[in-house]
Amino acid sequence: MAYRDLVSQLTLEEKASLCSGLNFWQTQPIERLGIPALCLTDGPHGVRLQRQGGGVFDSEPATCFPTSAALASTWNPALVERVGEALGDECRSLGVHVLLGPGANIKRSPLCGRNFEYFSEDPLLSGQMAAAHIRGVQSRGVGTSLKHFAANNQEYRRLTTDARVDERALREIYLASFEGAVQGGRPWTVMCAYNRLNGTYCSEHPWLLTEVLRRQWGFDGIVVSDWGAVNDRVRALAAGLDLEMPGGPYAQDADIVRAVREGRLDEAQLDETVTRLLELVDRAYRPRADEPIDVEGHHRLAREVAGEAMVLLKNDGSVLPVAPGSRVAVIGAFAEHPRYQGGGSSHVTPTRLDIPLHELKRAFGEESVTYAPGYALDDDEPRADLIEEAARIAAEADAAIVFAGLPESWESEGYDRPHMRMPDAHVQLIEAIAARQPNVIVVLSNGAPVEMPWISKVPAVIEAYLAGQAFGGAIADVLSGAVNPSGKLAETFPIRLEHNPSHPFFPGEGDRVEYREGVFVGYRYYDTKEMDVLFPFGHGLSYTTFTYENLRASTGRMRDDEVLVVQVDVRNTGPRFGKEVVQLYVEPGSPRTIRPRRELRAFAKVALHPGEVQTVEFQLGKRAFSHYDEEAQDFVVESGPYLIRVGASSRDLRLEARVEVESTAPRRPIAVHANALLGDLLADPVTGPVLRALMQERLAGSPLGADIESNPTLEAFMKFTPIGRLTTLFGVPRDEIEQVMERLREAQAAASGGEDSE
Amino acid sequence: MAYRDLVSQLTLEEKASLCSGLNFWQTQPIERLGIPALCLTDGPHGVRLQRQGGGVFDSEPATCFPTSAALASTWNPALVERVGEALGDECRSLGVHVLLGPGANIKRSPLCGRNFEYFSEDPLLSGQMAAAHIRGVQSRGVGTSLKHFAANNQEYRRLTTDARVDERALREIYLASFEGAVQGGRPWTVMCAYNRLNGTYCSEHPWLLTEVLRRQWGFDGIVVSDWGAVNDRVRALAAGLDLEMPGGPYAQDADIVRAVREGRLDEAQLDETVTRLLELVDRAYRPRADEPIDVEGHHRLAREVAGEAMVLLKNDGSVLPVAPGSRVAVIGAFAEHPRYQGGGSSHVTPTRLDIPLHELKRAFGEESVTYAPGYALDDDEPRADLIEEAARIAAEADAAIVFAGLPESWESEGYDRPHMRMPDAHVQLIEAIAARQPNVIVVLSNGAPVEMPWISKVPAVIEAYLAGQAFGGAIADVLSGAVNPSGKLAETFPIRLEHNPSHPFFPGEGDRVEYREGVFVGYRYYDTKEMDVLFPFGHGLSYTTFTYENLRASTGRMRDDEVLVVQVDVRNTGPRFGKEVVQLYVEPGSPRTIRPRRELRAFAKVALHPGEVQTVEFQLGKRAFSHYDEEAQDFVVESGPYLIRVGASSRDLRLEARVEVESTAPRRPIAVHANALLGDLLADPVTGPVLRALMQERLAGSPLGADIESNPTLEAFMKFTPIGRLTTLFGVPRDEIEQVMERLREAQAAASGGEDSE
Repeated sequence: MAYRDLVSQLTLEEKASLCSGLNFWQTQPIERLGIPALCLTDGPHGVRLQRQGGGVFDSEPATCFPTSAALASTWNPALVERVGEALGDECRSLGVHVLLGPGANIKRSPLCGRNFEYFSEDPLLSGQMAAAHIRGVQSRGVGTSLKHFAANNQEYRRLTTDARVDERALREIYLASFEGAVQGGRPWTVMCAYNRLNGTYCSEHPWLLTEVLRRQWGFDGIVVSDWGAVNDRVRALAAGLDLEMPGGPYAQDADIVRAVREGRLDEAQLDETVTRLLELVDRAYRPRADEPIDVEGHHRLAREVAGEAMVLLKNDGSVLPVAPGSRVAVIGAFAEHPRYQGGGSSHVTPTRLDIPLHELKRAFGEESVTYAPGYALDDDEPRADLIEEAARIAAEADAAIVFAGLPESWESEGYDRPHMRMPDAHVQLIEAIAARQPNVIVVLSNGAPVEMPWISKVPAVIEAYLAGQAFGGAIADVLSGAVNPSGKLAETFPIRLEHNPSHPFFPGEGDRVEYREGVFVGYRYYDTKEMDVLFPFGHGLSYTTFTYENLRASTGRMRDDEVLVVQVDVRNTGPRFGKEVVQLYVEPGSPRTIRPRRELRAFAKVALHPGEVQTVEFQLGKRAFSHYDEEAQDFVVESGPYLIRVGASSRDLRLEARVEVESTAPRRPIAVHANALLGDLLADPVTGPVLRALMQERLAGSPLGADIESNPTLEAFMKFTPIGRLTTLFGVPRDEIEQVMERLREAQAAASGGEDSE
Repeated sequence: MAYRDLVSQLTLEEKASLCSGLNFWQTQPIERLGIPALCLTDGPHGVRLQRQGGGVFDSEPATCFPTSAALASTWNPALVERVGEALGDECRSLGVHVLLGPGANIKRSPLCGRNFEYFSEDPLLSGQMAAAHIRGVQSRGVGTSLKHFAANNQEYRRLTTDARVDERALREIYLASFEGAVQGGRPWTVMCAYNRLNGTYCSEHPWLLTEVLRRQWGFDGIVVSDWGAVNDRVRALAAGLDLEMPGGPYAQDADIVRAVREGRLDEAQLDETVTRLLELVDRAYRPRADEPIDVEGHHRLAREVAGEAMVLLKNDGSVLPVAPGSRVAVIGAFAEHPRYQGGGSSHVTPTRLDIPLHELKRAFGEESVTYAPGYALDDDEPRADLIEEAARIAAEADAAIVFAGLPESWESEGYDRPHMRMPDAHVQLIEAIAARQPNVIVVLSNGAPVEMPWISKVPAVIEAYLAGQAFGGAIADVLSGAVNPSGKLAETFPIRLEHNPSHPFFPGEGDRVEYREGVFVGYRYYDTKEMDVLFPFGHGLSYTTFTYENLRASTGRMRDDEVLVVQVDVRNTGPRFGKEVVQLYVEPGSPRTIRPRRELRAFAKVALHPGEVQTVEFQLGKRAFSHYDEEAQDFVVESGPYLIRVGASSRDLRLEARVEVESTAPRRPIAVHANALLGDLLADPVTGPVLRALMQERLAGSPLGADIESNPTLEAFMKFTPIGRLTTLFGVPRDEIEQVMERLREAQAAASGGEDSE
């Protein structure tokens, strides 16, 4: 028997009790009916099961996989799905029913403290990565909780701030990421965000939690609150929030009971929520006795993924991979004490931890590797003695590998970074090493972009992000060439923070943050504004080379309800096996709406042996050409030319094709009134011919009598003139104008004809 | 007797008839009472009196002074005032009572078709220039019409578009320019704009026309509609619009009569408007028989002003001034057919016209000057034959002067430019000349910024703007060194259009344009975003050099109701007499509100002989440190450090001083409720100490019992936690929280004490 059928046997109090947890991590059981408690636990890149009797950050060991920032850089959903499977397995081993993740929030600003837990600035990539993660975990009978829904793009005042976002930006960017995750992953739960969205707490936002999430996207799971996100329990339930967390004696179940008793809340609505909550119990696996964590296997997976995530930002003169037999100076305290995850609820107690220095000694030989810390872990100020020691060993080696990035305390849930700089200790170290050793390789460990004032002084940089417990092994693989890097940036690295589109409106004033950049987030902004960037979205080098050949589109002219098939041949023209992320961007050719210059609409990762060529195929449907039309309340396509551009980053586009797309959106008749512009009325296919004829017929002698389109200067002035102003400006009698407008409306009625009877 | 005293003798119909014109250019007379008609005529940089019986663009000759874009580049209000005096004299000569100008709209985008008629991207500079213009004209007993009020920053759909602007941007930028003009110039009339502002037509916007303009700024003149700007005559009158233009048989006076009769409009309101209209008649001069235009004197003034307006953008290797005896190749059809004004209502029939080529021959000697047109005036496409001919004469000369810029039809009232580029014909010509002659001097004639992809290829560039009928003589003065250029840019030249802050939201979608950049207009944006620009705001070179020395401020600590006196010594360290524009910018040191990086708060132009030093003094009041606080509905100063920076452009700041300013704004008590943040409550001087004590007294044992400020990680999490969430998150009972909040409110009541009784 299914638990969901027990609703009718529950008392009102029991039903309300199910709407919050038993405690911090468990749902409420009903022993009388044998309804078990479920265990929910933080993710997303590792299982953080709080140790019995331990503090809130004291958790059972579990594999610490690369963080989402790193996972996204793989651009490899299949690999992320494997991580999800492993996470699901570990949940079962630890008795966890729902893993709280993944996070699908868009990286609006590089400063957001939780960016390392999120995937991308692009909703397509973010949504696909989140969906893969969800599919992987849930394939093991363990639930996920897609979070934080929605527009939770900063930690600053996160429980009270009001994100003011226009609907187009929500639909195309912030919600689109969740839409992709919900539809591609079908998560069992969605976690609502702390913040307010356009004036309403996300925890009590009916449009967000019910209209969009359930009705429009078809989500059929439960909505759980972020821990402490419930403001008004009754309003939250009515809006579609099922489960308040944490639970315990101070949860607000009694408010629900009282609201039902007082008629302020329909008990049927409570029953819907309880039914969904019991369906979650139905869905969850039943623990078996003995499912130990595959510590070794998962560590190997963590290493594989970390290796594939690393982004080779720069490699002048092919400094990398480090040649066998080289004397290598390993510099930076992070080589001994790696940074591999961020702070806050996602913090995992790893099962093992690779030390980069040890792994590099293993790779290059103990005797070939020297080491100096270069900076103190707990001090951001440069230490001259440490820098000097490091510069000395760098000068004596064939190459220097500098481990740098952001200190642990700089990146955490709960607060944002105040700036985008690295510690002075790291910057001065890099510059000092570069002054003494030409072959400098900088390895960055950080959860989000940093400024690199030193970039021109070093030949090679690897962005490793926060790469999980096997970072040490993975970086040795990439530096030595055992693994050919294939990561690509899932976010733009601007030259400086101020260039970011959210600046200076991030993180807002008081409890209000305005997303004034609208849809112009990440590369959509930098590319549209034609701004120089440090490293563009999608960028990442390889130890081999790829060429793009023979782009072909299935048609050059299509309706927006048809599918365009695009094929391109990618060839490995270099000496090594490697993987390439092929990116497809669509550019509207002559948009009438304000559009980003280009948008990522498809991508694929291909693995190629030297000389091998593969054909990559993409299918582009309506959404790939569309924008969200707030008036139509739908994604619509504008008729016109579109450019299909394929390449290796948003700024490295190799091939292009042109397609003329015809919109199937119903044409809206122009509103005929005194402030309708002559230019619009003349351009409209229905009113245009009628007005033109009328102007000749009836208005001869007035300035309208002349064909205004035949005189360029007059046309410019007249096309922006409202028809009603012809009276005062040009002496056309008011009743004459009224008659003309009536004729135009008659023409519209005649044209809509059959449609009127619908 | 004053005409204003005749109101009581007027019939309702007569009163209404005064509310619109007699025809296109005259106000309504009432012969029965001897009330004369006044003549209104387009400006602002010349008198455009329509010729009797001629077409709308066929006007009586009048001096065409430099356009406002050029006037602003002088940064010399006294000079602009002299232009105003000359304009006033010409109005009297031509029988004009009100000159329709100046325009004080802010240059939001370089594309706006009327930018040449406007002064600056900065409201201080724009307001001061407009005020000087007004004072000059009105000193002759002739009225002005400050226009187009307000937020009329584009021509695209200008009669219907709705400018959506936040109040802070209005107050600090768009309205501030008019505020400075109204308060510094006291114009007799203000002309309302065509467009809507935040949903309401400016012509019927009570907040704009009455609350802000009259009540807050003390404007005591009449508001006239832009020609055809009235949408609803009765709503307009009720909002404060006095005079509808144009008038004639189709003006809407009858609507006013009907509205009064039907009780929809208070006749007292009509009487106020009529009183103001008659006061205008009282103010206006009475024409005398014989006041001829001083054609020669005004042409000399036009030449002086044009010379002082020219901005020397670049002068590598001191190519300029052209050495006496040089063989000079003059290139570009603009040298024979100068561009000196823009299109539309401001277009003047000049009394004389200097031809640059002739003036250059006069300056350098007929025999030393060769000429080639280089491009066709009426064709934007490059002509290889013309370019080749020009390159040939350039190669044979010692220097080449290329006249280029924007064709006449590209800049006009009525439409905006679609891009910021120069014609290909001009770009290719410049590049061809630069390939054959190292000493290339480009002279630009254009009303607004252009992209200069060729900038690195030429050593010298002069931005002459649209410099009026004496452009030819003035450019000869500057090129020959007879005049040392002292113009400074009143607007930023971005590298490319896309960098402009209004991009991509200009000119909007349909009839809605969102000013999403808010106060970040012009250099306020580029400097805050730390973006590279082609030429910064305030930039302009000289043939001599200046040093800035000895900056001193009257105090290092002040209240915001005190005045800071800043002095700086400026020295001419070069070999020539010259003028320098000394600019003072204020930078908030640690603002809590979102602020531009720096703002121009004062400027002065000094004339210095070689070796001469002068002390420049500035006085900075409250406004210089303030921002507009929408909640307080006032300009307020944040307490904190401010940097006073003085220099030669917004990017060439030479000296600085620091002042600590204490705000006198009343402190608003923090709102104590369940969603008040712990961090805010603790930081507040009233609630902070109470809460801290309570936490120790009453909440011992709970997580609040510890001093959360002593634990950095906990602090970060807790400071953004609303006090009410301590219940569900930390198990503090709800009634306990309620009691704490009550105690905090009691503390606030006690602290406000005496103030409560007010």
